[in-house]
Amino acid sequence: GDARAGRAKAIACQACHGLDGVSKLPDAPNLSGQVEPYLVKALTEFRDGTRKNEVMSVAAQELTDADIANLAAYYSGIQVEVIPPG
Amino acid sequence: GDARAGRAKAIACQACHGLDGVSKLPDAPNLSGQVEPYLVKALTEFRDGTRKNEVMSVAAQELTDADIANLAAYYSGIQVEVIPPG
Repeated sequence: GDARAGRAKAIACQACHGLDGVSKLPDAPNLSGQVEPYLVKALTEFRDGTRKNEVMSVAAQELTDADIANLAAYYSGIQVEVIPPG
Repeated sequence: GDARAGRAKAIACQACHGLDGVSKLPDAPNLSGQVEPYLVKALTEFRDGTRKNEVMSVAAQELTDADIANLAAYYSGIQVEVIPPG
């Protein structure tokens, strides 16, 4: 996926997921640094109807495979540092 | 939820999601610092069958509401620092 193209497409995602992948709503997951193949799978399942969510089933409807690959590249590419639990 | 009890329960999750919430498999999402209500929803949907996944539909089967709340408290409580994209 092309992270640069994904960033442009992510304008449509930012109200809920942030442009930095930090969720703005209790029902929306953080996406920053998320596993890339997981993001591809999630978006594909929302688009194809095998995973359902009021918002995402609509939002993913028009995405091409390339859009999905680009969005996954963009959000997975945001760096995250995990502070290991004590 | 009780993060301490969640940590004990997370022994069953760590092969795929890590005890620090960092995924060990391409199909498994990172969970560190994930939005707590989102985690509750995801686990509840896997348990109740409204969301399906080969591994998670089985793994969530025996979870009580308290287990789910505790696991969500544990994984959401792991601190994550996001480095904002340029």
